[in-house]
Amino acid sequence: MNIAVAQSGGPTCAINASLVGVFSEALKEPAIDAIFGSINGIEGMIHDHLIDLKTMIRTNADMEMLLQTPSTVLGSCRYKLKDWHDDETVYQKIIERFQQRQIGAFFYIGGNDSMDTVMKLSEYVKEKGLDTKIIGIPKTIDNDLCITDHTPGFGSAAKYVATTMQEIIRDSSVYSAPSVTIVEIMGRNAGWLTASSAVLHANGETAPHLIYVPECKFSLQQFLEDIRQKMAKHKAVIIAISEGVEAADAATFQSGVTDEFGHKYLSGIGKYLEGVVREQIGCKVRSIELNVMQRCSSHLCSKTDIDEAVQIGAAGVQAALSGETGKVMVFQRLSDQPYTVVVTSTEAANIANRERFLPSSYINETGNNITDAALPYFLPLIQGECNMRMQNGLPVHFKIQESVLK
Amino acid sequence: MNIAVAQSGGPTCAINASLVGVFSEALKEPAIDAIFGSINGIEGMIHDHLIDLKTMIRTNADMEMLLQTPSTVLGSCRYKLKDWHDDETVYQKIIERFQQRQIGAFFYIGGNDSMDTVMKLSEYVKEKGLDTKIIGIPKTIDNDLCITDHTPGFGSAAKYVATTMQEIIRDSSVYSAPSVTIVEIMGRNAGWLTASSAVLHANGETAPHLIYVPECKFSLQQFLEDIRQKMAKHKAVIIAISEGVEAADAATFQSGVTDEFGHKYLSGIGKYLEGVVREQIGCKVRSIELNVMQRCSSHLCSKTDIDEAVQIGAAGVQAALSGETGKVMVFQRLSDQPYTVVVTSTEAANIANRERFLPSSYINETGNNITDAALPYFLPLIQGECNMRMQNGLPVHFKIQESVLK
Repeated sequence: MNIAVAQSGGPTCAINASLVGVFSEALKEPAIDAIFGSINGIEGMIHDHLIDLKTMIRTNADMEMLLQTPSTVLGSCRYKLKDWHDDETVYQKIIERFQQRQIGAFFYIGGNDSMDTVMKLSEYVKEKGLDTKIIGIPKTIDNDLCITDHTPGFGSAAKYVATTMQEIIRDSSVYSAPSVTIVEIMGRNAGWLTASSAVLHANGETAPHLIYVPECKFSLQQFLEDIRQKMAKHKAVIIAISEGVEAADAATFQSGVTDEFGHKYLSGIGKYLEGVVREQIGCKVRSIELNVMQRCSSHLCSKTDIDEAVQIGAAGVQAALSGETGKVMVFQRLSDQPYTVVVTSTEAANIANRERFLPSSYINETGNNITDAALPYFLPLIQGECNMRMQNGLPVHFKIQESVLK
Repeated sequence: MNIAVAQSGGPTCAINASLVGVFSEALKEPAIDAIFGSINGIEGMIHDHLIDLKTMIRTNADMEMLLQTPSTVLGSCRYKLKDWHDDETVYQKIIERFQQRQIGAFFYIGGNDSMDTVMKLSEYVKEKGLDTKIIGIPKTIDNDLCITDHTPGFGSAAKYVATTMQEIIRDSSVYSAPSVTIVEIMGRNAGWLTASSAVLHANGETAPHLIYVPECKFSLQQFLEDIRQKMAKHKAVIIAISEGVEAADAATFQSGVTDEFGHKYLSGIGKYLEGVVREQIGCKVRSIELNVMQRCSSHLCSKTDIDEAVQIGAAGVQAALSGETGKVMVFQRLSDQPYTVVVTSTEAANIANRERFLPSSYINETGNNITDAALPYFLPLIQGECNMRMQNGLPVHFKIQESVLK
């Protein structure tokens, strides 16, 4: 039989590592012939835009290069399948492709939206009596998938956030004047990545002095009070805040910070709060958005994360071969120290369209910092560095022709 | 005799390396007794806020940690000395300190403003018949100092910018829809750091497809035309632009992007142009500000830069011992390949308050990209990586008590 693999959703440092996991494991299996890559996620299956991965990934050096290349080498998509009871058109196209190309297993590397595709597609395939196995391989820097202990991509993002935050702390502490630095971190509904900046406390940093996550109610009044308290103790106050935090009492602070369309946070919550602090406290203040760097900084990836991303991709292949379908591969943590995880699987329905939030024990009582109870969870995920292959002083990336992706 | 050293201006990855250079070279010299660190630049000399560096930097491990710690461990300042002909008060305080503390040489690690201090102070010291040598050690990520081939701190910033830009390219290329990504890079008047992103072209990247520096006239009309041309060839157009670029014809595009105070670029030129592209071209567009990360990301420093920063600090000590004063240490490049530089010195007056701009041969005819002629200049500066000492998966930083800096 042949197999196909696709990548979906927002970039991370580990999605290509999971592709390597699927690919290298499939290579070892005599039962598997061609390994197709579907371009731009499920869209490649729909439009028959597939490439033969054995012609793309030719050597071990290619695989090593892929491991250090962020984002999705096969492109991505944000495509959501409709309910097949309402409209089968797209499903029929996909199934046609499975049959034409003799695809016995399809691996979808993605977040909770992609696991919705795994769920629906596997149901449809069963309904039609086909034997193609559909397996989800998780990824997201948001770490917000249910069941799995953590998601590939998160560890590297967390390592980037903490390392960069530590450098920002040094940068912010040089002048004698008091200052506030607000670092905006990705996470619309769940605060995992923002919370992970607390790992710096394990290394003796007092900063971040304040950490705000979407799981807690946020009030500007309290925020300003928190800052004033911290400023009494620290010359340079450092704040980590999730992009998804919303101020319930923002309306009372609105003057001049909405744009002409009435958007509340013209350039994100960090920039917005920078304006509020400047106006209300009047000290030196800076906001920093870690932007896409937090999801694509492979030069600073966590070796644990990359190794596990390969492992979970490979485990997906074995799951399909042993007859599983409609499943998502997940990590189960057996121990924090020594850090031990095993890969198992769960029904896609347990993960699709659901979100996992920070446990309340990780958040302090006042809702403005992360407790030390969270550290044994986060720390193992950021361990280890990958040796990068360099050219001209820069990490070498695996690239495919722009024309292939078009 | 004793010596003193201070750090000034904006943070870089290499300022502490130059401190290590001064310190370790001074340790070797039997003529030098105490080595004082002046807290917050020249302000520490004025207010007698000095610490004995031998009690702060005790071991080789301390020195190694300092090498991988960004920013200024002794704090910084933005203090400009008045002309001593007008007001001698502060000068008298400094000189008093020199005499009290028997300081025979003072080393000032900083940018062109700090070299103004070196110039004025050395003149005053001579005028008063004192023998304290005043030596400047250059640093700035802007690379805009005259005479010197390049400045310590620039190579690491350039390596960060290029590495991050490459990751942003991967991140931006995943979806099938056309997009524009605008990366805003530091540099108010000189485009060195922005231009350095062109090193990616040496590794076969077509991006950045457009590079705008303050040395060239910039028109929004032409900018939009440039983008349209590049979009015809590339799905994801990547743009590097200096923060200091100003649009001559911005007024015609102003709707809704000024704030209530009439500031032209509410959140920087990148964010501003993002709005213009969205409005005028209507495609997916994102702006990214590399912010302070580009000056403090020691985890990604250039080994060449750090080694040279140590070397130029050490050379400063030897210059003072051989009787030089009112001088700034500079790099003279003898060859691009093999890359060879020597450290010499120049009168502070040649550097103080002056700026060096990109040579026109580095900029293409249309003023929207950097030529390959620039690559032999930039490439040697970003070579090599430093092995970082890690703790809990994070680089270890050298820290001094917050109370010492207060």
